[in-house]
Amino acid sequence: MQLIGYFRSGASYRVRIGLNLKGIGVEHASRHLRKGEHKAPDYLAINPQGLVPTLVTDDGQHLTQSLAILEWLEETHPTPPMLPKDPIARARVRAFALAISCDVHPVQNLGVLNKLKAYGIDEARVNQWAAETNHDGLAACEKLIADEAGPFCFGAEPTLADICLVPQLVNARRFGADVSGFKRLLEAEAAALAHPAFAAAVPEKQPDAE
Amino acid sequence: MQLIGYFRSGASYRVRIGLNLKGIGVEHASRHLRKGEHKAPDYLAINPQGLVPTLVTDDGQHLTQSLAILEWLEETHPTPPMLPKDPIARARVRAFALAISCDVHPVQNLGVLNKLKAYGIDEARVNQWAAETNHDGLAACEKLIADEAGPFCFGAEPTLADICLVPQLVNARRFGADVSGFKRLLEAEAAALAHPAFAAAVPEKQPDAE
Repeated sequence: MQLIGYFRSGASYRVRIGLNLKGIGVEHASRHLRKGEHKAPDYLAINPQGLVPTLVTDDGQHLTQSLAILEWLEETHPTPPMLPKDPIARARVRAFALAISCDVHPVQNLGVLNKLKAYGIDEARVNQWAAETNHDGLAACEKLIADEAGPFCFGAEPTLADICLVPQLVNARRFGADVSGFKRLLEAEAAALAHPAFAAAVPEKQPDAE
Repeated sequence: MQLIGYFRSGASYRVRIGLNLKGIGVEHASRHLRKGEHKAPDYLAINPQGLVPTLVTDDGQHLTQSLAILEWLEETHPTPPMLPKDPIARARVRAFALAISCDVHPVQNLGVLNKLKAYGIDEARVNQWAAETNHDGLAACEKLIADEAGPFCFGAEPTLADICLVPQLVNARRFGADVSGFKRLLEAEAAALAHPAFAAAVPEKQPDAE
């Protein structure tokens, strides 16, 4: 399989972690976002949204949207699991993952930040927008797991929640959001980064890192 | 069960459709978004993001995030299915649903539009932002199903894709986006609105409609 991504893309980072957790080796291909390579016609032909990542399966299927790719991985490679067995517990893990993937990440991604600039907002205020979006979204996430056992977001093993959390914390810090008060999120992040599947997926270790 | 939502909320609309498809009757409770009732302390205690909907299960669990609720419904009430059986087909349906739920809906929801105003963008340009976000996102969705059989997004029966599409088209039109060129999306919408589960879920038929 081939993962078409970008070292700094949070959505690509999620899929890298998932592949590592499942022990699946893939070829890595890069589309440089700041150079607009994800908007090239050959890429739009396989990913009409012009977003990374795309997973190319061994039989040439193109899968898009990181959470859809991760659910596909979970269904086709169930061990070790990224979701608990109990339906209510699964719903809580997915809700946390979606709180980040729907309500934080897309509101501070490159496309939206460029659009804010096109609407006349200066760079400092655009960064403020991104910092606020990260801070406020993660503050809600901290509450979502306040009653869950650690050290990971939902207990003793990593789940889809940690897979979404760890890349988002990178973005939050890059934009200057103060995450120091989010004790449970930081506890989960520390546990995750000590796990080899997460450690090998960090942006700075990818072949296209700058 | 009780669904805490709002007639005009696209995410609430999705869950109403899913419940109807599964034949599950629930009590409906409303939080008026423009009055800020979703940011009241008693609601934030059960939904820290301050978003609708929340599904309250019979044993008092509070489930948040519409797609997590719908996946829970699918797992606990598998008939009729909202997802196909084949893993690749499931990934395609989920990718379409996420393209709307991550990359369109949250970028044009009330919170972001209010934030744009707080950043100094006037109302006409804020509406333009919402219209563009809907148009461009739905244009990609049209391509995602270009090779799929109709009349629904993915074949002869409604799926999670149609459940996300129909409410988004309401928003797109409300903001003045031109959706007339999206032939496959409109074909799927027409098929959906002829289905009783969708017809009963439309905003104007809800008890809190104004």
